Amino acid sequence: MAASQQSGAESLKPFFYPRTIAIVGASREITSIGYRLLESLQEGRFAGMIIPVNPHASEIAGLRTYPSLREIPAQIDLAVIAVPAGLVLSIIDDCAAKQIPAAILITAGFAETGGSGTSLEHQLRETIHRYGIRLIGPNCFGVMNLDPAVRLNATYTPIVPPTGHVAIASESGGLGLAVVTAAQRLKLGLSSFVSIGNHVDVTVNDLLEYWEQDRNTHVILLYLETIVDPPRFRRIAERVGKNKPIVVLKAGRTQAGQSAAGSHTAALATNDKAVDALFAQCGVIRAKTLEELLALATGLSAQPRPQGKRIGILTNSGGPGVLCTDSCAVEGLLVPELDKATQSTLASFLPPMAALRNPVDVIGFATEEQHAKAVETMLTSSQLDALIIVHVSVRPKDNEPVAAGIVRGIRSAREAGYKQPVFLCWMAEGDLDRSFIVDGEVIPTYRHPEIPARIIRYDLTYEAWRKQPSGQIPAYADVDLVTAKEICAKAFAARGPGWLTTQETHALLRAVHLPLAPGHIATSAEEAVKLAQKIGYPVAVKLASHQIVHKTEIGGVQLNLGGDQAVRDAFNRIRTKLEQAGQLDAMEGVLVQPMLSSGGEVMVGMTRDPLFGPAIAFGLGGIHVEILSDVQFRIAPLTDRDAAGMIRGIKGYKLLTGYRGQSAVDLKALEDVLLRISRLCEAIPEISELDLNPIFALPSGQGCRIVDVRIHIEPPQPAV
Amino acid sequence: MAASQQSGAESLKPFFYPRTIAIVGASREITSIGYRLLESLQEGRFAGMIIPVNPHASEIAGLRTYPSLREIPAQIDLAVIAVPAGLVLSIIDDCAAKQIPAAILITAGFAETGGSGTSLEHQLRETIHRYGIRLIGPNCFGVMNLDPAVRLNATYTPIVPPTGHVAIASESGGLGLAVVTAAQRLKLGLSSFVSIGNHVDVTVNDLLEYWEQDRNTHVILLYLETIVDPPRFRRIAERVGKNKPIVVLKAGRTQAGQSAAGSHTAALATNDKAVDALFAQCGVIRAKTLEELLALATGLSAQPRPQGKRIGILTNSGGPGVLCTDSCAVEGLLVPELDKATQSTLASFLPPMAALRNPVDVIGFATEEQHAKAVETMLTSSQLDALIIVHVSVRPKDNEPVAAGIVRGIRSAREAGYKQPVFLCWMAEGDLDRSFIVDGEVIPTYRHPEIPARIIRYDLTYEAWRKQPSGQIPAYADVDLVTAKEICAKAFAARGPGWLTTQETHALLRAVHLPLAPGHIATSAEEAVKLAQKIGYPVAVKLASHQIVHKTEIGGVQLNLGGDQAVRDAFNRIRTKLEQAGQLDAMEGVLVQPMLSSGGEVMVGMTRDPLFGPAIAFGLGGIHVEILSDVQFRIAPLTDRDAAGMIRGIKGYKLLTGYRGQSAVDLKALEDVLLRISRLCEAIPEISELDLNPIFALPSGQGCRIVDVRIHIEPPQPAV
Repeated sequence: MAASQQSGAESLKPFFYPRTIAIVGASREITSIGYRLLESLQEGRFAGMIIPVNPHASEIAGLRTYPSLREIPAQIDLAVIAVPAGLVLSIIDDCAAKQIPAAILITAGFAETGGSGTSLEHQLRETIHRYGIRLIGPNCFGVMNLDPAVRLNATYTPIVPPTGHVAIASESGGLGLAVVTAAQRLKLGLSSFVSIGNHVDVTVNDLLEYWEQDRNTHVILLYLETIVDPPRFRRIAERVGKNKPIVVLKAGRTQAGQSAAGSHTAALATNDKAVDALFAQCGVIRAKTLEELLALATGLSAQPRPQGKRIGILTNSGGPGVLCTDSCAVEGLLVPELDKATQSTLASFLPPMAALRNPVDVIGFATEEQHAKAVETMLTSSQLDALIIVHVSVRPKDNEPVAAGIVRGIRSAREAGYKQPVFLCWMAEGDLDRSFIVDGEVIPTYRHPEIPARIIRYDLTYEAWRKQPSGQIPAYADVDLVTAKEICAKAFAARGPGWLTTQETHALLRAVHLPLAPGHIATSAEEAVKLAQKIGYPVAVKLASHQIVHKTEIGGVQLNLGGDQAVRDAFNRIRTKLEQAGQLDAMEGVLVQPMLSSGGEVMVGMTRDPLFGPAIAFGLGGIHVEILSDVQFRIAPLTDRDAAGMIRGIKGYKLLTGYRGQSAVDLKALEDVLLRISRLCEAIPEISELDLNPIFALPSGQGCRIVDVRIHIEPPQPAV
Repeated sequence: MAASQQSGAESLKPFFYPRTIAIVGASREITSIGYRLLESLQEGRFAGMIIPVNPHASEIAGLRTYPSLREIPAQIDLAVIAVPAGLVLSIIDDCAAKQIPAAILITAGFAETGGSGTSLEHQLRETIHRYGIRLIGPNCFGVMNLDPAVRLNATYTPIVPPTGHVAIASESGGLGLAVVTAAQRLKLGLSSFVSIGNHVDVTVNDLLEYWEQDRNTHVILLYLETIVDPPRFRRIAERVGKNKPIVVLKAGRTQAGQSAAGSHTAALATNDKAVDALFAQCGVIRAKTLEELLALATGLSAQPRPQGKRIGILTNSGGPGVLCTDSCAVEGLLVPELDKATQSTLASFLPPMAALRNPVDVIGFATEEQHAKAVETMLTSSQLDALIIVHVSVRPKDNEPVAAGIVRGIRSAREAGYKQPVFLCWMAEGDLDRSFIVDGEVIPTYRHPEIPARIIRYDLTYEAWRKQPSGQIPAYADVDLVTAKEICAKAFAARGPGWLTTQETHALLRAVHLPLAPGHIATSAEEAVKLAQKIGYPVAVKLASHQIVHKTEIGGVQLNLGGDQAVRDAFNRIRTKLEQAGQLDAMEGVLVQPMLSSGGEVMVGMTRDPLFGPAIAFGLGGIHVEILSDVQFRIAPLTDRDAAGMIRGIKGYKLLTGYRGQSAVDLKALEDVLLRISRLCEAIPEISELDLNPIFALPSGQGCRIVDVRIHIEPPQPAV
């Protein structure tokens, strides 16, 4: 582990394990945030010392109060600041003077309000970086550490969730509040919680590194509206995720949502497909809704990962059992029929009308004993990787014995060494919030029969990602980036931003060893004929021009030319067309190529996201990309695994593997193109857009040929 | 309205408005169903008379009890039967003797258990049909009518939901129980509830007709595992749905789910795509999950339909506001910026840090007054078609004033004549089940910010369907079904089940006036050459054979033949190939066709679903159908609206409307093909499968040409 990473995580310790906290802006006014921070710390029985700071009081809430930080004789580990925005900078000066290493800034009125708030935030950032003070916030609602050794609740809600192993960071105070307060009802044990607000200093990336080291944290939940420093996020999330699942609810996935988020925490607009790509690359589990985030939190934190997709369903009612079975099938899980021996065992104690195959329906009035035995029988059958129990309350008074039976059944199985995860759907009006805890093990309990299957599928996807070896980013010693850079620099010097010429694109692709389709440029009809003769008929003749992008539309692509006269005519037709359009200057000549037959046409593209950097696209080209949107994206740098996954991820993948007697194409060659393009675009930020379209994929072992290329250059954008 | 329909609905009245009920199998044993039925009726304060029937008692629960139905002196309107399955038939005899018009059969042990249960169910059906007794069940959990005039709870749950306008029928007792008991918490007012069990007599279709007439019912919810008599369901649902939305949770949408349902209520396996098609055709709203069913129930029953897609969002917390905005965008709704005047009004009373554009964020500590004014301002702004309010509780004690403010705001707007629907997301731990009722109007209240947008989108889709004129099924006087039937009958008589010959398919398509591509059959090479000369080169030569289905694979399709010798060679190649394969007998000759150039290739297919009848498919053919699954289905008979919708419903539709400079194709001609095929397949049940593939779609006004056809015939299956 890098030293900086260790020290980064180390520098966050005062936020979570302070011995002495100063509350700056503490107040006797019970509606004030300052008062409520004090109250939360006191009610939470904080294990350290609390020192209120208020220029107009000498005692608040029974605590000795100081007029300013500077006058406190003790050493302070953490300042929690809730003063008007205009006073914040002077308080930071005080923190520096007192050598306080860390501060939580609750105060709002910074970049989220725009205008002068934004410049105040710039000053704040500059100030704390100058002093070397770590800061959480501003515009946040505080920090909790549920470790019984410290019992820190430095937020303005008095509600403290149970202690456990889930760490949460939220970019929205309200959302964080909703999750933290729901944790109690859901028996969701937390290790710590951070409201990160405008994250001028401490970001989610820092917190991930802290929680990586934190023994109390096993699962990490994030609510994000933006991704700060995506390459670092990716690096850290991938490393941390190998041991601790990271679940993200990323808001602003639509333009409208981004604009709403923009007026809120000044989040940067990002392409949601890039977000999906990044998360897929680093194993982050993306929750689609708040409901899924909460369901995943309880599901992932309390139960072991399933080791396969064979699901047992135990129910006391057919209909909900069918809905649960449907949801399993929709999520790609299996609900296998139990073997005859297990069915016989079940039959020996269940009522005669029970269904035994799976779903097992114990029917409406099954007893505690029948539930206990059925749960135990299914879990110990060795035929199931997970168990979902779906209960509809028929008589309220049955709930207690049924619940007891379920707990007994799970306990027996656990004692016998069976560790499959168990999930509950408990549909018992008046008793919906019942908790199921088996010797300290919380059984995740939902209200609807469709949810457990979704959680199991997320679980399996994560587990598959976690188990696979990390992808490699090939070094490609033969990629001549120096030459490639020179080509771009010369073009830029000569013409400024714009498309590279055909000569330039060809030279550039040769420098990175990408397989160009054969072809040469001719600047006269006779030269074109000579080239065609050398190549052998039939040939294709295409306009070479960096200024005219849509060549087909103006008749600039002439295919299947069978003889000299046809080539001559084609050249002249293209020339005349341009002349008539007054665009003869744009003609660099024509490209004469042999007619290739393709095993399949594909395209590779790159657009540069202002936040995420190069986003590489792969698709089948043509209507597949333009109309059917069958495209896969990944963020550079691509690993070999990313490249392989992109190709296999498109819906039309089958077309590349030998559809209808055609031969399978050279997938390795396509992966190689993707990886080299990734390398190129990462290394040369001046390349703002790139299209290899079409690429002819040839049969396995024969590579591929890039038939058409466009490369756009402009001055690199400063990182945002 | 047809007389039978009126009388059908009339015959169900005794289930909902009985004056005297007999409980057969009433018992003193408090764990028995018979006892609990009595208890439910009594606790529910049934307005009529209850008469227990039990051979071993003269009084149960304070009521005079008779040993058998026959001995009751009074007239009985409804018998509720809960006796062992073996006694049921003799009780039905008693019902007949007593001239009881209706019975609810709670008893299980019929077809759902298979074997002898199935034959018992057959006997039961035969018996009640013979007597003319209407029967709900068996294997059901009863009927409720919440009308205060009758207060009927003939189920074995004592929990009675509030009175309102939602009618529910459930094929699963447990699921019905879950919904009915949840209604109380959700303030979901019901008109009536029916557990339909194995529906040997009264089906969902009958209930739809009853509820169509029932003034208390405005919205209908169904939980179904099968669709009984789909054509009748479609007809009734379409008619009823024009006035009363019908929401269906259809389980068994996967193979696994169907098999689970099969072991439960013996539901027939059905193709889920056919279900989707049928529902789309008759305006049924399909809930995907139980959660959606409940959310739709509260959303549709309590609020007016939105008149457009402009959504206002009012929140006290940014993050949840962003999630709500995202969900609106995902559902195709708009969150428009409010005009400057409205923003100024909001600014005049909201805190300075509030966001005013929409979402409107009143921020964490807004008061009752601020909430009331903000709600009123947004609803009366005339810029919004619906309002979603998203609240995160910051301090539990704020909930009361915030809730009061919301109610006041809605009331003011309603009093001023603004009727847009309002939905709430109330995230207040400890207060999650709060109800919002404004002068009797229930405001649907959810827990997650993503749900309201989904309900609004369902609402709008339903409303759009409701407002459109019904589609027409064209009569097609020029479709010669007599000839078409004769062709099928002759082929069947000659060869039994199988594919029609090329001659037969051509004759059949001509009889229904479908546009075949020109072409004639030649049985020798020289005949083929003559035909080719007459047609003019280039031509296509294709194997004609009803026995060999995959012609391309064996080289049976030779395209672009430019001269006599090429045609002669093609004929001989095909002949030799078949000879070598020992299949010469299968060769009917070759089809000689002109080479057509196509504006786009499409396919139309038909498969006969055992339950739903002809399911017609439309797609672009080739990889679009086989790999990308871009196909639309509808159930015959198609209306003109169905046909138009199918073509416009495929993802690749743009390819038919003039993509990349190609001319738009003749959509009317394709619709005509779909409608004629629908007519053909409806009228001739012997056609079990049909494929028109490819069909060349020509430019607008030029029609289309069916290039290849396959038609399979077999003896029609008995209706299931």
